[in-house]
Amino acid sequence: MRTSIATVCLSGGLTEKLHACAAAGFDGVEIMDADLVAADESPEEIRALCARLGLGIEMFQPFRDVEGVTDEVFADTLRRASAKFATMARLGADLVLVCSNVATATIDDDELAARQLGALADLAAEKGIRIAYEAMAWGTYVNDYRHSWRIVEKADRPNLGICLDSFHILSRGDDPTGIEQIDGDKIFFLQLADAPVLDMDLLSWSRHHRLFPGEGGFDLPGFLAHVLAAGYGGPLSLEVFNDTFRQTDPVRTAEHALRSLLWLADRTAHAHGEGDGDAGVARPPRAVDFVEIAGADLAVADEMLAQLGFRFRGRHRSKPVRLWSYGDARIVLDEQARDERPALTGIGFVVDDADAAATRAARLGARRIFRRTYAGEQDLPAVSAPDGTGVYWSAAPEDRSWVAEFEGGVGGESTDGVIDHVNLGYHWSEFDEAVLFAASALALTTESSAEVPGPRGLVRSQVMRTRDGVVRIPINLAPPTAPLPSRHIAIRCDDVSAVARRARAAGLEFLRIPANYYDDLAARFGLDDAALDELRNLGLLYDRDGSGEFVHFYTPTIGGVFLEFVERRGGYEGYGALNAPIRLAAQRNEEVRRGVAGSPA
Amino acid sequence: MRTSIATVCLSGGLTEKLHACAAAGFDGVEIMDADLVAADESPEEIRALCARLGLGIEMFQPFRDVEGVTDEVFADTLRRASAKFATMARLGADLVLVCSNVATATIDDDELAARQLGALADLAAEKGIRIAYEAMAWGTYVNDYRHSWRIVEKADRPNLGICLDSFHILSRGDDPTGIEQIDGDKIFFLQLADAPVLDMDLLSWSRHHRLFPGEGGFDLPGFLAHVLAAGYGGPLSLEVFNDTFRQTDPVRTAEHALRSLLWLADRTAHAHGEGDGDAGVARPPRAVDFVEIAGADLAVADEMLAQLGFRFRGRHRSKPVRLWSYGDARIVLDEQARDERPALTGIGFVVDDADAAATRAARLGARRIFRRTYAGEQDLPAVSAPDGTGVYWSAAPEDRSWVAEFEGGVGGESTDGVIDHVNLGYHWSEFDEAVLFAASALALTTESSAEVPGPRGLVRSQVMRTRDGVVRIPINLAPPTAPLPSRHIAIRCDDVSAVARRARAAGLEFLRIPANYYDDLAARFGLDDAALDELRNLGLLYDRDGSGEFVHFYTPTIGGVFLEFVERRGGYEGYGALNAPIRLAAQRNEEVRRGVAGSPA
Repeated sequence: MRTSIATVCLSGGLTEKLHACAAAGFDGVEIMDADLVAADESPEEIRALCARLGLGIEMFQPFRDVEGVTDEVFADTLRRASAKFATMARLGADLVLVCSNVATATIDDDELAARQLGALADLAAEKGIRIAYEAMAWGTYVNDYRHSWRIVEKADRPNLGICLDSFHILSRGDDPTGIEQIDGDKIFFLQLADAPVLDMDLLSWSRHHRLFPGEGGFDLPGFLAHVLAAGYGGPLSLEVFNDTFRQTDPVRTAEHALRSLLWLADRTAHAHGEGDGDAGVARPPRAVDFVEIAGADLAVADEMLAQLGFRFRGRHRSKPVRLWSYGDARIVLDEQARDERPALTGIGFVVDDADAAATRAARLGARRIFRRTYAGEQDLPAVSAPDGTGVYWSAAPEDRSWVAEFEGGVGGESTDGVIDHVNLGYHWSEFDEAVLFAASALALTTESSAEVPGPRGLVRSQVMRTRDGVVRIPINLAPPTAPLPSRHIAIRCDDVSAVARRARAAGLEFLRIPANYYDDLAARFGLDDAALDELRNLGLLYDRDGSGEFVHFYTPTIGGVFLEFVERRGGYEGYGALNAPIRLAAQRNEEVRRGVAGSPA
Repeated sequence: MRTSIATVCLSGGLTEKLHACAAAGFDGVEIMDADLVAADESPEEIRALCARLGLGIEMFQPFRDVEGVTDEVFADTLRRASAKFATMARLGADLVLVCSNVATATIDDDELAARQLGALADLAAEKGIRIAYEAMAWGTYVNDYRHSWRIVEKADRPNLGICLDSFHILSRGDDPTGIEQIDGDKIFFLQLADAPVLDMDLLSWSRHHRLFPGEGGFDLPGFLAHVLAAGYGGPLSLEVFNDTFRQTDPVRTAEHALRSLLWLADRTAHAHGEGDGDAGVARPPRAVDFVEIAGADLAVADEMLAQLGFRFRGRHRSKPVRLWSYGDARIVLDEQARDERPALTGIGFVVDDADAAATRAARLGARRIFRRTYAGEQDLPAVSAPDGTGVYWSAAPEDRSWVAEFEGGVGGESTDGVIDHVNLGYHWSEFDEAVLFAASALALTTESSAEVPGPRGLVRSQVMRTRDGVVRIPINLAPPTAPLPSRHIAIRCDDVSAVARRARAAGLEFLRIPANYYDDLAARFGLDDAALDELRNLGLLYDRDGSGEFVHFYTPTIGGVFLEFVERRGGYEGYGALNAPIRLAAQRNEEVRRGVAGSPA
């Protein structure tokens, strides 16, 4: 299917937007009149640019508030329309959007609306223009797609059809199954947008908070399936009004946007058994294979991993890379990096078909990474996530030959560890993109989200995971004024107290937890003195819910990365959200002590 | 009255917050338990710090969800309370907030609620602690202040009273006049917050969007008057949950917060005829006296002003400062600045009593500016706005002796000009502060606000003005990723076409308006060809509403400032909002042409 995007989704001037859409690989665009009006280029120049870039002008959106008005107002509307149809002829656009009247409508009369839309369609027909009539969710009288369709049927003009917009239908909670009753040839256009589930007025929600498919709470695959079942064959066009995307780099946003459409098409096809094999349909990973920390000098990390009880598995036979493991949790220390500051730079996943996973991610717009490999080394298929984090795939554990490339390590009696979750922090402008990447390229699904008050502002956190919980990636969003949040690797073990005791005996200082925290624990949970003393003495944190308990501790931060050890008791499925503000405050206190924290502004 | 602020309003750790509150001049604080729990300092250390800083601990907020529960749940609540009362004893706090149950309430029974609150009060009484019970707007059963008051009356304990919070009352649209029926001695605490008028769920509105008094849409002076009429004599305490204030510099935010309380106290007193003379009550300015542009070399500005028909009024007799005027619009060019980039750095206002205005602004926390003056020069009382912009006051026009300090200018036949408005751009984190400064120190009132889509994101604009419209200051908010928006001075004249023709003849190039704009004007307003040709040929912009017409043009930008000439026909009161996106796009096109615009990211 053709892919398309409304120019209003992107920042910049119209020509910048068009270049960005073409660079990302869109087939066409929906041009907002406001973008054309503000452009230095004439309609003819824009038409020529689109032709050169291989972009179809799928639709033009030049005016609103047509139907349900007095004859006098409608006469002026026809005059306006006539002028805009002339612009469309210059632009080479032949489909125009007409939204249901939200402002000037004074008459609630379907006969009148059909008559006026019919008259407009007749005027358009003289110019070879088709009209797509759309029910806006806050239309004065027409705000339901079934209603707009009834009016279009009543008007009965060959060049008058309807436009469907997922936001206007799903935001109202309308049932989209009725779409299948509409003649697919009369669905002239399809606009797609996701949105977070919010309880606010429709107009503000629509104008500021729309998201690309896969990033919000709407069932876009289900919606699209109904539209396709109706027989729609036109483009899938994104129309996303979002305060963030309006100000971020248009090339990057356009790539991000296209990824959302490809994800949506795959998901929809998959749900209907039409996937094109493994390459087309995302399969969730079976495990985290390893996490990579890179930096110019990682001796401090070596020491910390040893203190925590990690086993040294050796040095890579041809690169300055070392492997440590704690049971099934593997951490790769990579000193090939030029950056002085250690950082969490890569994650490996175990999947059934590594090449298929990488191919699929590349098809979603991710850049392939090719690393220098030598004879006999396993070449893990890999891509770069939008923020630059490396993503590697390897086949099922029995094939994990890359581990054998590390030499000189200690023997392999295993402990009980496994990677519980990997927490990735992002700048605020990269958050939605990161969520979509995890949903599309990594085939993870959206779990809970939380807001954590920290000393530098609210931190938003969105957990992405496999349904079985084996892979969990909480994605954190830093407030605009804060630096990039540290990332961390959480290791799950059977007895976190034992790990803590051993690590402390080996000389590791944990993140310092304030004494007041333990007083609060006592008040909150009524723990007995012995349990409380153990937590306090070991510097452990604690949480409990109806299903079980969670005990954990954090290491100090090395550069931009730290470790957490967690123990889950019973059916506890969370991440100690109540303790996250304590952790953020303690990390900032630590920075203040070390003199590296600036004023929050 | 005592001033107080909840620690949750500010960023940073608890000790940083306390220092910021003291530096701003607050009398006390309301400590959120979460801030204490995350602090490295013990309750005793926090108590000592508050004592040293001269801050009273007005209230402590350690737990929620008390009343309306089963006996079993309530027994655990008493256990929790007991632990927190012990913390309060260490902290030296004797008032505790109890919010109406939003979570664990299962029983809708006022008798039970009164019995449980009474039992809690009896436990508190043993420790010398008083309880303030507050109806949360989204309380499960108790969400109206009249209801919480009925329960408190029913419980009838000397140490149990109510807490009123303006947000929880005004957000629900509840009538606050009933507050006067409450025994003032039983109002144990008052929390104040403003908020923008939004149509969204109460919890999200409350947690993210509260504002300091004077910045939102609530009638806080009216609300406070009812509370004072009831006989309340406790502190005025701010409790503002706001995503921006959580991440901005706590010292600056605390100053900003205190300014809002002082504004509120003045407004409330004024409304009741209790102002302490001119120093206490803000009087709106009578006119804009001048606008100052500063820069290291302003020769380009001289040339532009001359081309526009400004008259050169001379050089200052002792400083590198020049004065230009266009009728009653005066622009001061100040080359004392070290900054190479010309900027709008000051505004002068005409008021009845300049010293009183400056004294009042200083009392609101603004810093006085003292400039080097010589014998015989008029010393204009002045302060620095929070962002550094200079604000000067001079007495009524007949006393405007500072103009006579400029020598060597041309004669004074006057033209028709006057300053229509001065548009000030701010970084996103300074917007609310700027609005409050205009409301409090400048005594302007809030008019319309608008959102303008620009190529770098949405620009929010809030007009601040005198009721008579003689002084109008639109305040613009840049999106986070965008640079500080340019500021501009708009001159109103009787015949903008004549000004434009003369300026063009003198060689001035205006901001280039795209040809597509005029095609759109034709479609939008149905202007005749002659009118359209005149607009197009002169590069003028046009708007029309039911009351009149607006014709205007923009000059190119010099550094961070440009000029606008406007003509208002009939009763048009707006600012050409539909043209603002054209202006933003044209300015960006200009930057791209000049090679100074980067990618929007």
